Amino acid sequence: MAIEAGNETGGHRRIRLGMVGGGQGAFIGSVHRIAFRIDDQFELVAGALSSEPGRAKASAKELGIAADRAYGSFEEMARAEAARPDGIEAVSIVTPNHMHGPVAKAFLAAGIHVICDKPLTTTVTEAEELAALVQKTGKVFVVTHNYAGYPMIRQARAMVASGDLGEIRLVQAEYLQDWLTERLEATGQKQAAWRTDPARSGAGGCIGDIGTHAYHLACFVSGLQLDELLAQLSTFVPGRLLDDDVQILLRWKGGAKGMLWASQVAVGNENGLKLRVHGTKGGLEWAQSDPNYLWFTPYGQPKQLLTRAGAGALPEAGRVSRIPSGHPEGYLEGFATIYAEAARAIRAAAAGVEPDPAVIYPTVHDGLAGMKFIDAAVKSSAANGAWVRVG
Amino acid sequence: MAIEAGNETGGHRRIRLGMVGGGQGAFIGSVHRIAFRIDDQFELVAGALSSEPGRAKASAKELGIAADRAYGSFEEMARAEAARPDGIEAVSIVTPNHMHGPVAKAFLAAGIHVICDKPLTTTVTEAEELAALVQKTGKVFVVTHNYAGYPMIRQARAMVASGDLGEIRLVQAEYLQDWLTERLEATGQKQAAWRTDPARSGAGGCIGDIGTHAYHLACFVSGLQLDELLAQLSTFVPGRLLDDDVQILLRWKGGAKGMLWASQVAVGNENGLKLRVHGTKGGLEWAQSDPNYLWFTPYGQPKQLLTRAGAGALPEAGRVSRIPSGHPEGYLEGFATIYAEAARAIRAAAAGVEPDPAVIYPTVHDGLAGMKFIDAAVKSSAANGAWVRVG
Amino acid sequence: MAIEAGNETGGHRRIRLGMVGGGQGAFIGSVHRIAFRIDDQFELVAGALSSEPGRAKASAKELGIAADRAYGSFEEMARAEAARPDGIEAVSIVTPNHMHGPVAKAFLAAGIHVICDKPLTTTVTEAEELAALVQKTGKVFVVTHNYAGYPMIRQARAMVASGDLGEIRLVQAEYLQDWLTERLEATGQKQAAWRTDPARSGAGGCIGDIGTHAYHLACFVSGLQLDELLAQLSTFVPGRLLDDDVQILLRWKGGAKGMLWASQVAVGNENGLKLRVHGTKGGLEWAQSDPNYLWFTPYGQPKQLLTRAGAGALPEAGRVSRIPSGHPEGYLEGFATIYAEAARAIRAAAAGVEPDPAVIYPTVHDGLAGMKFIDAAVKSSAANGAWVRVG
Amino acid sequence: MAIEAGNETGGHRRIRLGMVGGGQGAFIGSVHRIAFRIDDQFELVAGALSSEPGRAKASAKELGIAADRAYGSFEEMARAEAARPDGIEAVSIVTPNHMHGPVAKAFLAAGIHVICDKPLTTTVTEAEELAALVQKTGKVFVVTHNYAGYPMIRQARAMVASGDLGEIRLVQAEYLQDWLTERLEATGQKQAAWRTDPARSGAGGCIGDIGTHAYHLACFVSGLQLDELLAQLSTFVPGRLLDDDVQILLRWKGGAKGMLWASQVAVGNENGLKLRVHGTKGGLEWAQSDPNYLWFTPYGQPKQLLTRAGAGALPEAGRVSRIPSGHPEGYLEGFATIYAEAARAIRAAAAGVEPDPAVIYPTVHDGLAGMKFIDAAVKSSAANGAWVRVG
Repeated sequence: MAIEAGNETGGHRRIRLGMVGGGQGAFIGSVHRIAFRIDDQFELVAGALSSEPGRAKASAKELGIAADRAYGSFEEMARAEAARPDGIEAVSIVTPNHMHGPVAKAFLAAGIHVICDKPLTTTVTEAEELAALVQKTGKVFVVTHNYAGYPMIRQARAMVASGDLGEIRLVQAEYLQDWLTERLEATGQKQAAWRTDPARSGAGGCIGDIGTHAYHLACFVSGLQLDELLAQLSTFVPGRLLDDDVQILLRWKGGAKGMLWASQVAVGNENGLKLRVHGTKGGLEWAQSDPNYLWFTPYGQPKQLLTRAGAGALPEAGRVSRIPSGHPEGYLEGFATIYAEAARAIRAAAAGVEPDPAVIYPTVHDGLAGMKFIDAAVKSSAANGAWVRVG
Repeated sequence: MAIEAGNETGGHRRIRLGMVGGGQGAFIGSVHRIAFRIDDQFELVAGALSSEPGRAKASAKELGIAADRAYGSFEEMARAEAARPDGIEAVSIVTPNHMHGPVAKAFLAAGIHVICDKPLTTTVTEAEELAALVQKTGKVFVVTHNYAGYPMIRQARAMVASGDLGEIRLVQAEYLQDWLTERLEATGQKQAAWRTDPARSGAGGCIGDIGTHAYHLACFVSGLQLDELLAQLSTFVPGRLLDDDVQILLRWKGGAKGMLWASQVAVGNENGLKLRVHGTKGGLEWAQSDPNYLWFTPYGQPKQLLTRAGAGALPEAGRVSRIPSGHPEGYLEGFATIYAEAARAIRAAAAGVEPDPAVIYPTVHDGLAGMKFIDAAVKSSAANGAWVRVG
Repeated sequence: MAIEAGNETGGHRRIRLGMVGGGQGAFIGSVHRIAFRIDDQFELVAGALSSEPGRAKASAKELGIAADRAYGSFEEMARAEAARPDGIEAVSIVTPNHMHGPVAKAFLAAGIHVICDKPLTTTVTEAEELAALVQKTGKVFVVTHNYAGYPMIRQARAMVASGDLGEIRLVQAEYLQDWLTERLEATGQKQAAWRTDPARSGAGGCIGDIGTHAYHLACFVSGLQLDELLAQLSTFVPGRLLDDDVQILLRWKGGAKGMLWASQVAVGNENGLKLRVHGTKGGLEWAQSDPNYLWFTPYGQPKQLLTRAGAGALPEAGRVSRIPSGHPEGYLEGFATIYAEAARAIRAAAAGVEPDPAVIYPTVHDGLAGMKFIDAAVKSSAANGAWVRVG
Repeated sequence: MAIEAGNETGGHRRIRLGMVGGGQGAFIGSVHRIAFRIDDQFELVAGALSSEPGRAKASAKELGIAADRAYGSFEEMARAEAARPDGIEAVSIVTPNHMHGPVAKAFLAAGIHVICDKPLTTTVTEAEELAALVQKTGKVFVVTHNYAGYPMIRQARAMVASGDLGEIRLVQAEYLQDWLTERLEATGQKQAAWRTDPARSGAGGCIGDIGTHAYHLACFVSGLQLDELLAQLSTFVPGRLLDDDVQILLRWKGGAKGMLWASQVAVGNENGLKLRVHGTKGGLEWAQSDPNYLWFTPYGQPKQLLTRAGAGALPEAGRVSRIPSGHPEGYLEGFATIYAEAARAIRAAAAGVEPDPAVIYPTVHDGLAGMKFIDAAVKSSAANGAWVRVG
């Protein structure tokens, strides 16, 4: 199996990128920066890295961003960069959730491609507005559901699509953490604080933060669309304002069933994202804790341990692999693939052509689907667990 | 840690045992016989091993049962054995589900202790009658929820009870198989045929056959009682008469939540019974595929791999262990422990004393709870997933 | 795949068995008794259970052995049982190593079949005498290299024999424990005391106790014979009289190579017996910690996880399996298979026929090979790691 | 535990880097480039990327290296860069083995820091010359024994150093592959061709390519120095010119023992690098296949699964971690850490100060030790397995 990723730009000029959010003390901004450096398709040249101007400037300096492109606000940045001949071509949005929508709108309006963290917005309405704006502007819009970048997830998706599992009957997803087992937000811990604050996170806590990842992955691999769901959202930690555990029954269009469990209080789990898909002809199992493996059981035959870039790996996995099998790739490489795909899409857009059909990334529609998922789950739970149609 | 099980009778006379069901071609009868031989507490001396008299006789002969104690019907057996001075003291019932109740009643009425397979009966009413009869007769009644015999399950239960996990928030159980992925019952396969036949299985298919095991285990370990449930039962295989996949939301008394998934069409699973319990102070995870291990994470500390009879094993695990850690015990030893506990209870009853408080086995009340669980799940699913109070 | 084991005697009379050693406080005697009860082919009717007469009597009583067949010495037992019309047909020898030879000779001379623990004796000479006596008497002689009873080991052996791995290049074995990390023998612990005492163990400590198991397994699965070895035996614990760690380079006849590592001071290991075999066409990996699995990689294809009685399991595994795949069998069932095979061989001998060719058990020749292995390793190590020809 | 790596330059100017080797069709050059981009400490500005000038130019263009700094030979590059005011400060050497020495000497002589792939050279003599030159020039010299960059390897080293394992008794290492099971070099495959060619690889095949990695890791973690070894090198594939399997007995200074097994024909292994260390107080186990885990067993206590950046992770692991635990880091991040440490050392050298004592990287002395290891193993094997003193 040919390994194709990681081959650098092949002589292409790197895409000029800006970043909103991600300054000192942030977590995910640093992840995005490593991710886009891995395949060297982007160059970070501008930023509004913090809502606090002093920290924004200091953070920019640390990152080697020129002082005149270290902005105090995203509005200013969108305006100024759009006006420069060497202005940014794309922006990464790595703020808390409530800012995703406003920032994305500003840059789309300024004619700049967008790479945006998830969940897309804090309301379905805002997500729909964003989707409409993407449609109208024709800009590339990538949502960093990064787990879709793992090679063995690409492999799983390709196997389902090619019929290796037969007709899908069961899609089960879970994403388990334990870092919010106690009331961490009360200690001032920054990551916990905004994630448990409805004003910055939206109506969903755990469901928005990690439930949407599990949901996206289930859709991405199975190729199915959700028909309806039934949810019980729980807040186990006294004083917490949003859900910290989510349990959902799923009914997929076409008749498949499933369950989704996301938790931030399941002691013993760090980032336990796991997906299982079962069809009439085979079953798949994947876990982020060991992402270079995919378990595949053709019905009635021995279980196989497929490995990234190993025997049985498909081209869909190979094109997003960088190193030989047995040398583990991880979270950052999966994240890098989202950026590499974004680069391909942006280059195609610049050239006025369609990207290679092999190029896949989570779009604004996936982001919107995530918002509808959150919305339906919150409604279902509020109705004591009623079936709610999604989308 | 002292290993205590497997020490034979210590000079005790073996308990005289009969068996109903379990003749040639049966599966579980042979398992019961190995199980009670392991610790040598019982002696099989009588049987009504098949509803077909010829097979009953032939099966008895193979097992070394004297011809005059190889009965053609369980009624005859109960009558005759009760009348013998050397009659059986206990009976094992290993028939299809619909016979559990009638057979159990006959032997209880004859003053004979009962060890009965699960699910207890095919209706809640019959289970309640049985529970009342046990109460009235004072006989020992053991339901072979055999997974409760695994040492690391005993360990888990003890750890929860002692507060090692703090207050329990989440109890998640699953039991996954794939042997009914296709319509095996249409081929005449005996095990599949009765399990998918409402007349012999009762109102539940997968939920009765394996869902009740998962449910019992969840209750056994957590010490919790279920308050209400919400179920979607599915029949994926066309033409099948009972559910082959079960997905249930759980609300435990006291506020814990959970999910239970049982499936017989989840390709890639053989007997994937798994339990996870998470509390305010710790988390546990156990899987039957590797039953000598129990994962324990004290919140904020490294995950520990506890092993049967290894460092950290509690007396509750040791008293049902037979060999040193690292030498795996399995399904049959766990099953044997149910019989060993039954023997202790029967000897205590014979002596007119209470058994040692350490003696634990699934009782008729656990069997009744299982029937209520099936009943509630079937009702909930029929109501398109309504919350139904249990018990 | 048909499961064939565990079907009881099929109406056969149970074989009358005696036991030497294995009284109160012993470990392995209890294991042997559970093992032979599992498949119900033997009936324990006589014993010389301890070298201390009082303990011998008390132990016999606990096991339900009639007082007149509870002997104070093995010589008396051999004599008396040989004289009885209902005398034992076979004897299990579960004493410390130095008694294996004398006891086995006495019973062989008395015309009684022998099931003997390993290592066979304490010297090669004595082992050779025993092999000659077996040859002369024509009695069945089984050495309890019990790991050869695991179904997936049978599977592995069959796969190698059928050429699934091509020409074998590498055979690597290890057996790791940590229970002798400190000087446990100084505390009076009985198991440690005799195992570290040259008078009772022979010239090898760790190498005899567990190294021979690893060696037998390597030979049993690979079908190869060892040509020469080079060993470094270590005694890490100050004051210990025998080796507690053994590292050996192996040269197999035909050109394969390998290493064997056995240790009783490798902290973190309970009974870590592991075998890896690699050929020109495939590779196998098996570990006792998860004995129901066998990893098989056909060269250039995905790794397969074969399971006992699961898809891909061969008849050689099925005939020694008792329960469906996914329900783990363990150490005791593997041990039981040695007894079940012994029973088949003894019945065939009684009938004056050859046993079914499928019947396989470790013989006196395997026991002798083990002694030559110990001897060569001790010599090699004493010569500072010289190559020593084996056998 | 604080995560410290991945924080970019903190405003530092990036170090100017050149590369020798690593042009089109090479594997490891691409790995090095991803590795140094991850933490953004270096900027690739010059290269002699291939021994074939045309390919060298084309490769440079693809990587965005200016045409006037795309050299046709390393000699020219060393000369020209040393003469530029903006010349490279460091060079990465990613050629086949036989060029490491000549290239390294040229750049050291030109006053340029060196980051060099392993094994260091093809002879001990050349390695000693290089070590002397490093000593004389005072330049930073980093050997990319990249596995030393894994956080849990840092953790293991720190635990051994702090006495968590007590006195070390056993150090066992293995590195298993199967990609040379057949005679791949005969197909013209570039990676196989030079690795099996004595002219380009040196006297060792498998032992140089991967055996030295395992050896370095064993030394790095245990803190021990090897006293003597005894090796059997094998060439299993007919026609191959170098060893493809290596089995070695180890005697460490101070009395510890061990074995090292490296193979390129062990079917079923991709890059199975594994290390086990056992002392009087504890044991450790680590495998590259799951590099974010470290198994630790304090003697007599439950086994712990330590995770990168998780509970129990030490500062030594945290300072080379980039993302939270549960999000796997992999091979590329470990490799990046070697570059990040190199950057710290180079910046310290530029500032004329000692680097922070926490900064650790494999030095020219480690490279020399690797050459002595190869040399001793080849000699030992040639002498039919004699003990050979190392170093």
